[in-house]
Amino acid sequence: MNNNLYVALIHFPVMNKNGEPIGSALTTIDMHDIARASITFGVRGFFVVTPYEDQAMLATQVVEHWTKGVGGKLNPFRKKALELIRVTRTFEDVLKEIEQERNEPVITIATSAKKISDSIDIKKLRQKCDSKNSHLLVFGTAWGLAEELIEACDFILNPIVGNAEYNHLSVRSAASIYLDRIINER
Amino acid sequence: MNNNLYVALIHFPVMNKNGEPIGSALTTIDMHDIARASITFGVRGFFVVTPYEDQAMLATQVVEHWTKGVGGKLNPFRKKALELIRVTRTFEDVLKEIEQERNEPVITIATSAKKISDSIDIKKLRQKCDSKNSHLLVFGTAWGLAEELIEACDFILNPIVGNAEYNHLSVRSAASIYLDRIINER
Repeated sequence: MNNNLYVALIHFPVMNKNGEPIGSALTTIDMHDIARASITFGVRGFFVVTPYEDQAMLATQVVEHWTKGVGGKLNPFRKKALELIRVTRTFEDVLKEIEQERNEPVITIATSAKKISDSIDIKKLRQKCDSKNSHLLVFGTAWGLAEELIEACDFILNPIVGNAEYNHLSVRSAASIYLDRIINER
Repeated sequence: MNNNLYVALIHFPVMNKNGEPIGSALTTIDMHDIARASITFGVRGFFVVTPYEDQAMLATQVVEHWTKGVGGKLNPFRKKALELIRVTRTFEDVLKEIEQERNEPVITIATSAKKISDSIDIKKLRQKCDSKNSHLLVFGTAWGLAEELIEACDFILNPIVGNAEYNHLSVRSAASIYLDRIINER
């Protein structure tokens, strides 16, 4: 699992604060932080998924500024991180791209800040994962992944809990913690 | 250690990319993300430390928007997180404030993205920490804490490493991962 891990950040379908399905706007700092965490933990590709033309264009402009433009000259470390990003329109397109690249099945792993009845911990996930598969860790923006997308995934990870009732981490924090837990096998 | 933990985010003295000591500008998203992680993991107080008048004023305005202004009405979860923030001028002021509040010694714990010769892991840190002390976890903005501040701390934590050479996580990611590791005892 550690050698064939991908990350997707979903902007549609996600939930608004009333739990209704929506599409969310791009937050460019998500791209930076999750790309930096992804490269730290050896992720093969980080998909920024939005169906909206203008948002995909903005995401592409950010990536190109840092990978081909002046940004990367000023900060080569940031260049290296943002080279992991692939701007993609749909979840299905992400799966197709990984399958073509790796020629092996893709196991999809949803994340949620809420406890969902059949969610599992990382130890159990690792037992269920095969090195002959690719693995896609899926994060939702806004108030989290829409139910239909969670249901479409093969596994759901337990939410991150601390020692308080609060479960409103940023997606940047959550992605960083999940990657640390998965890769550092704790 | 889990019940008397504080966090400080330092804007002076930190390093620029050439390793020279500087003061850095406030990044308001750091305040949000680290406050949300802090409340998740039961931190008692999150000190945003800047000696600059205008920057301290900006930090205070952000906090008040979310704790007393319209922000907190729109998003009560964010209000709860940002209520942890205390805008403070110097590292010494942070120590004084914790000592007054808790009436017990403060153990200071520096973090760094670079391996420093006498840094320790979290397991060892936990062995060395006493429940009769308060503990302050110290994070640097820009390119990390200045050497003089690291040397002033009682302990230095090992850097976060994944399975790659890259060690340029955002301070938001690093703080989230360290808090998860400390509180979830892994």
